[in-house]
Amino acid sequence: MTDSGKKRVVIENVKPQINCGQFPIKRAIGEKVKVQADIFSDGHDEVLAQILYKGPHTDTWQFSPLAFVGNDLWTGEFTVTRLGRYVFTVQGWVDHFRTWQKDLKKKHDAGQDIAVDLLIGKEYINKACTMATDDDRKHLERLSSELEASDISYAVLTALSTELIDLMDRYADLTSASYYERELVVVVDRKKAVFSSWYELFPRSCSPDAGTHGTFKDCEEVLPEIADMGFDVLYLPPIHPIGRTKRKGKNNNPVCEEGDVGSPWAIGAQEGGHKSVHPDLGTLEDFRRLIAQASEYGVEIAMDIAFQCSPDHPYVKEHPEWFQWRPDGTVQFAENPPKKYEDIIPIQFEGDGWLSLWDELKSVFLFWIDNGIRIFRVDNPHTKPFPFWEWVIHELKKDYPDLIFLAEAFTRPKVMYRLAKLGFTQSYTYFTWRNTKVEFTEYMKELVRTDVREYMRPNFWTNTPDILPEHLQYGGRPAYMMRLVLAATLSASYGMYGPAFELFVQDAIEGREEYLYSEKYEIKHWDRKREDSLKDFVAKLNRIRRENTALQDTWNVEFYNAENDYLMCYGKTSEDLSNIIIVAVNLDPYHTQGGWVHVPVDALEIPRGQPYLVHDLLTDDKFIWHGEKNFIQLDPQIVPAHIFSVRKRLKREMDFDYFM
Amino acid sequence: MTDSGKKRVVIENVKPQINCGQFPIKRAIGEKVKVQADIFSDGHDEVLAQILYKGPHTDTWQFSPLAFVGNDLWTGEFTVTRLGRYVFTVQGWVDHFRTWQKDLKKKHDAGQDIAVDLLIGKEYINKACTMATDDDRKHLERLSSELEASDISYAVLTALSTELIDLMDRYADLTSASYYERELVVVVDRKKAVFSSWYELFPRSCSPDAGTHGTFKDCEEVLPEIADMGFDVLYLPPIHPIGRTKRKGKNNNPVCEEGDVGSPWAIGAQEGGHKSVHPDLGTLEDFRRLIAQASEYGVEIAMDIAFQCSPDHPYVKEHPEWFQWRPDGTVQFAENPPKKYEDIIPIQFEGDGWLSLWDELKSVFLFWIDNGIRIFRVDNPHTKPFPFWEWVIHELKKDYPDLIFLAEAFTRPKVMYRLAKLGFTQSYTYFTWRNTKVEFTEYMKELVRTDVREYMRPNFWTNTPDILPEHLQYGGRPAYMMRLVLAATLSASYGMYGPAFELFVQDAIEGREEYLYSEKYEIKHWDRKREDSLKDFVAKLNRIRRENTALQDTWNVEFYNAENDYLMCYGKTSEDLSNIIIVAVNLDPYHTQGGWVHVPVDALEIPRGQPYLVHDLLTDDKFIWHGEKNFIQLDPQIVPAHIFSVRKRLKREMDFDYFM
Repeated sequence: MTDSGKKRVVIENVKPQINCGQFPIKRAIGEKVKVQADIFSDGHDEVLAQILYKGPHTDTWQFSPLAFVGNDLWTGEFTVTRLGRYVFTVQGWVDHFRTWQKDLKKKHDAGQDIAVDLLIGKEYINKACTMATDDDRKHLERLSSELEASDISYAVLTALSTELIDLMDRYADLTSASYYERELVVVVDRKKAVFSSWYELFPRSCSPDAGTHGTFKDCEEVLPEIADMGFDVLYLPPIHPIGRTKRKGKNNNPVCEEGDVGSPWAIGAQEGGHKSVHPDLGTLEDFRRLIAQASEYGVEIAMDIAFQCSPDHPYVKEHPEWFQWRPDGTVQFAENPPKKYEDIIPIQFEGDGWLSLWDELKSVFLFWIDNGIRIFRVDNPHTKPFPFWEWVIHELKKDYPDLIFLAEAFTRPKVMYRLAKLGFTQSYTYFTWRNTKVEFTEYMKELVRTDVREYMRPNFWTNTPDILPEHLQYGGRPAYMMRLVLAATLSASYGMYGPAFELFVQDAIEGREEYLYSEKYEIKHWDRKREDSLKDFVAKLNRIRRENTALQDTWNVEFYNAENDYLMCYGKTSEDLSNIIIVAVNLDPYHTQGGWVHVPVDALEIPRGQPYLVHDLLTDDKFIWHGEKNFIQLDPQIVPAHIFSVRKRLKREMDFDYFM
Repeated sequence: MTDSGKKRVVIENVKPQINCGQFPIKRAIGEKVKVQADIFSDGHDEVLAQILYKGPHTDTWQFSPLAFVGNDLWTGEFTVTRLGRYVFTVQGWVDHFRTWQKDLKKKHDAGQDIAVDLLIGKEYINKACTMATDDDRKHLERLSSELEASDISYAVLTALSTELIDLMDRYADLTSASYYERELVVVVDRKKAVFSSWYELFPRSCSPDAGTHGTFKDCEEVLPEIADMGFDVLYLPPIHPIGRTKRKGKNNNPVCEEGDVGSPWAIGAQEGGHKSVHPDLGTLEDFRRLIAQASEYGVEIAMDIAFQCSPDHPYVKEHPEWFQWRPDGTVQFAENPPKKYEDIIPIQFEGDGWLSLWDELKSVFLFWIDNGIRIFRVDNPHTKPFPFWEWVIHELKKDYPDLIFLAEAFTRPKVMYRLAKLGFTQSYTYFTWRNTKVEFTEYMKELVRTDVREYMRPNFWTNTPDILPEHLQYGGRPAYMMRLVLAATLSASYGMYGPAFELFVQDAIEGREEYLYSEKYEIKHWDRKREDSLKDFVAKLNRIRRENTALQDTWNVEFYNAENDYLMCYGKTSEDLSNIIIVAVNLDPYHTQGGWVHVPVDALEIPRGQPYLVHDLLTDDKFIWHGEKNFIQLDPQIVPAHIFSVRKRLKREMDFDYFM
């Protein structure tokens, strides 16, 4: 039992903490970890506590103080500054010297005899002297002698002095300190894990010539346009050879015709599998050049990882143990009965070859990492075992802490959260199916006001090759603009599938949220220069995001009351309030809507009784607002949203008003 | 990594669970543990799950099914039937055979070819055959052959039959089952841990002759009266020799006079310490006889454990290392500056002698256990280290799982909860300081609708020798009756300090919640036979509690809307609704209050449109009520409460109505 009996301080309920410390929380470089804990001791003694934390590749603890808030709750924080895994825990101890000071003061104030108490204080100081440096010892000895002053009030002044406690703290006895029983982990990512703007593009549709298979080189030509729109991640669907057996025709036709290119997610053919590039796109060298070229434009290429095979994938012959075979000797294709996906064969993770399979799949990531990729968008991770993802992401990030993994899991909430907990850097969300003010507000509350904020970073997608949401089918250009503003301002990371987005493609398969003649099964020739393209609007939004740090955070959103169910209003601010953004969106794509919105002027530190300027960064319009309630009106046919930058009014001696 | 990669089922968020499984939950024999967990797998396969649990002194797991509720939540339960420590955990696995059945049905319903699927089913059955008993194998083989029936519909019927799945379940492959990572502990106590009625009595005040020191023998004479009042626990303040040095006089006078008996909590004198009895009370043999005699009346003696010493306690000389000494050579007395408690010396738990100290204190418990005590009321546990209590309670309950420890900790909420978590069986509460309807409702919600319900069993005290609450000082007899009804019906365990309670003593020290001329410092001579004594009312309440199982549970309380802030109304029911109690209390001790109360007739399964009888068990009055809203009126000068037993009306063929 050693000295466990002397450890009187209790530390419990330490937060943030996910599944009792089983999973790390996530932060980006420069972000804070705000720690809280319940800390107390028996009796009435004074307690002190601090955070212990250490960054990657070091055994040296750093310390950050915890402050008592009330009701035995303590809070503190530290900032993470390096990529990789931090750990932190909490330490608390009974501070006998402070207890002595507190009691001495009370007794002295009550006029009690404190002669013996001063002697006790001298004992504490003498003990500190045995550990002190020469200088400190001399200093302590002098203060100790002052406790013998004939003027008791003077002795008490010395006893309670900052001078004395500062010295005593240097030699505080922590041998009976309690430690929280777990070391909690923080995974620290680069800033792009939090703030990123994604553009999804099929490279095979990039040819300037209609009907021609686009190449990586064609893709390079499109880079300036993507950069102009302000995106910093270009995500490409799988670039590997596509299977021929059971290849799907246009519009998901089970029968394919001559010239049909098939789905890029039917990975693998004679030409190779997950480590090869489709010959029609170019060579691996071409791909590497695309990566380098994109980098010049500040754009990072995100690779699609879809762990499934076409029937022609080399794995099927080389590693039959990784697949499920049927009694008739055929390999089991993908199905979700009664639906069949015969161009795709799922990998069998429960076979005896699972260990070699895990290694091979890890090597797929490493192959592309070696070729310069640092961002992976993972296709349907919820259909592969959770332990695999936990292992592979952890293993890869050991050597490459700058990796970003986006989980494309459109499934049940607890499954999505589990994937985020076990290591995915960003996650697809239900944003695409949230429509009303109540739905958005509730969903954002779930993401940013619960523990979810600690481990799941949402990435809001307006559309994907798989999903053309109903509101975009029927709401026209205003709906596209509205959804873009919502995605790009509610979440610090968002994405779109283009050019279908900026050209507001609305044709869906009847009664479904799927594109008619989807680009998944054919080459498209997009008219990127179309007059009514939304690309300038997209560019403006991304510029606003870059220029306003308040929009580079997801968890700072505050919803404001707007007296109209179609008007949604929310604010985002930088922590120091130097950047204040108020977004107002008309959720009705058909009609002009107006109403009063309530601005929390006190929280924004806008002086009551003083007007302030709201500057619409989308239209450059400026309005002077007064107090809490102000009126807005939005015509969706013009712009369905305001993104206001708030400027507080300054008073000058001359009573000459201007806006800072 | 063994086969960890094949364990596809995730189990998380298992409840009930206290501090990530650090502390046990509590149950009494016969109670249920309702378990919930989030359980899911990747993909679309069928999942099964169950609870594994085992009782004390066995290595054999028992199983209880978990049922899918929705949103990946599963629930189940098991009943604890033996004293001691149970453990439980959760197991989940992918059920391939059920997955096959589900898919087969979907394909067959969609008219797809299922020939190969039936062959796959036969493979599963064949595998089961290799493990099956002879009988089961033959049975399975017959069913397997039916899958080859030329009538496909018949084959499908067999494939989906209960007959087949029941057999297959016997040979289910659980090698890849996942287990929840922790085994969670349940401490199972005897029923009295949950349902108990405590009476606190100073034995030295039991003499029939005024001014004479009462004895254990006098105490025996009072037993019939205590039993008549319906109490089953008689708690005695410390019965040990009382110190003489710095002994307190009457009314907490720092100077004691000849004949003053001192505070029983100033434990220890020449005659002995914590293992001795005060000579004026009698001998250890007398005490043992009191215990036996009480037992005859169905009353159990609860012992006070106050780990502190008078300056005359033998420990002080024998074990100076267990106390704190001051530089002037004196021993440190108890203080909470500027207050001094010079008749009491606290034990020093941080000294180097802590290990021998712990052993000695444990031996104090064992001494009284050997003498027949099984219930301890622990004085101020929050002023001794938490690790000590955790250790000593755990050690003692290993051999004596029937022990009950009541924590007398009136302190901050998290400290009180920690003591309950670490092992105290029952806890004093804030009941004494809750007065309004909102306060009671909020407090009960905290105790019974949060995790607190799993580890803290409240014991509601109307008064104690230390506390004469303000409402009892000014509310007169009605206030006493009202507080008694509240304590005895809100909480399954409650207590009172008598006869000060039933004689409604109201004299307090001016401006404080303390008794004037407290029994703590002097012998009282109570007139137990006083005409206006509340003892018959107390007896009636305790009888109602014994006869109505609904009142033997704390966690089943439901508050009903009452349209008057002074009227509080709540219901308690047995789980099968065979016993329904509705309590209505007038919280205003001065005025008659009336109002509408809302009875949740649907939840109580009272048929809408049918009248029902509410029978007041306090007054024997009967009322016929109709539907949800009914009117009540309570005159505090008569009885400030109803305790209704609800009887539902029966319809008979002859339309002759009566009440069952």
